[in-house]
Amino acid sequence: MRILVIGGTGTIGSAVVAALKPRHDVIVVGQKNGTHQVDLASPDSIAKLFHTVGRFDALVSTAGRAAFAGLEQLTDADFQLSLSNKLMGQVNLVRQGLALANESASFTLTSGVLSREPMKGSAAISLVNAGLEGFARAAALELPRRMRINVVSPPWVTETLIARKMDPSIGLPAATVAQSYVASIEGTMTGQTLDPRTLPR
Amino acid sequence: MRILVIGGTGTIGSAVVAALKPRHDVIVVGQKNGTHQVDLASPDSIAKLFHTVGRFDALVSTAGRAAFAGLEQLTDADFQLSLSNKLMGQVNLVRQGLALANESASFTLTSGVLSREPMKGSAAISLVNAGLEGFARAAALELPRRMRINVVSPPWVTETLIARKMDPSIGLPAATVAQSYVASIEGTMTGQTLDPRTLPR
Repeated sequence: MRILVIGGTGTIGSAVVAALKPRHDVIVVGQKNGTHQVDLASPDSIAKLFHTVGRFDALVSTAGRAAFAGLEQLTDADFQLSLSNKLMGQVNLVRQGLALANESASFTLTSGVLSREPMKGSAAISLVNAGLEGFARAAALELPRRMRINVVSPPWVTETLIARKMDPSIGLPAATVAQSYVASIEGTMTGQTLDPRTLPR
Repeated sequence: MRILVIGGTGTIGSAVVAALKPRHDVIVVGQKNGTHQVDLASPDSIAKLFHTVGRFDALVSTAGRAAFAGLEQLTDADFQLSLSNKLMGQVNLVRQGLALANESASFTLTSGVLSREPMKGSAAISLVNAGLEGFARAAALELPRRMRINVVSPPWVTETLIARKMDPSIGLPAATVAQSYVASIEGTMTGQTLDPRTLPR
């Protein structure tokens, strides 16, 4: 399969690329690095990316920024960033990608466990993550040409916890999280939210 | 209690007002009608509303527009409307309302069952409804001064189905749906998504 990995230079994305590379043609897209670049907040930048990369069999997004801050500290700009980048950026990858997706292509987006397991500071991120999961459940009913869409909802990643000097034992290694993306791409499920903590592995 | 009902002139909102009026001081806010008016898509209009109505013990929103259309027919403007109106409009009622909410005040917003039970055409609405539920789960952890927040997720309402010449048997009467709002306001729950189909009644 020809697979685009948006965010393929990040912690989770590079683990997804590593897992897919042995048996697929993987194209790495980053914000600043990677073979191609895209600014998720810009529909024009997304259009330019698809014009450059052409047709594909699977699109993975492990990208998207959202603001983490206390409820009373979150600004209008924080919500705007979260909505335009992680939420609509990923939604627009699907909307614009439809035209270049091959028969039976899959889309795999990224939310996060804060969707259903919030913490203080996660109001904007929980909104965005839950919204992505709601979008995927609905879009799955309408994708043309037997296409599929799923969302992976990663927990904290061990590598990120170590980098931030937090307790790594509450996380999963990026390579384990990556297996949920592989399951979405190579499996037959659609409209699902995949939790790497409970996925058989 | 002094209770603001935003959307209090609509089908569900007027049933909520009718249920609350016998024992509370209810202020009806509409888009064009009601005692006061507000444009949910405008943070300035929301600020003006709060400046006018002052302090309150409970805020209910049964308001907010979102676009229903096929996945490939939904435009950028449709998503923008849905995000700025039903989603951020209700989120901004909470963010701006905090300053005027009394100790132990409650916020009760409205999503809809399309959040978890999507149908063709609901991609933008399912996104918005799920996002509201995610926001409420997270915001509940941080509301100051013992405040609470819940979301009611109404099914189809009988009155709406009759008006649209659809099968009314799949819906619930607005007066029954209104009981979930009353439960949120007069109960002690927070961070919950209330489904009027399963609420004890």
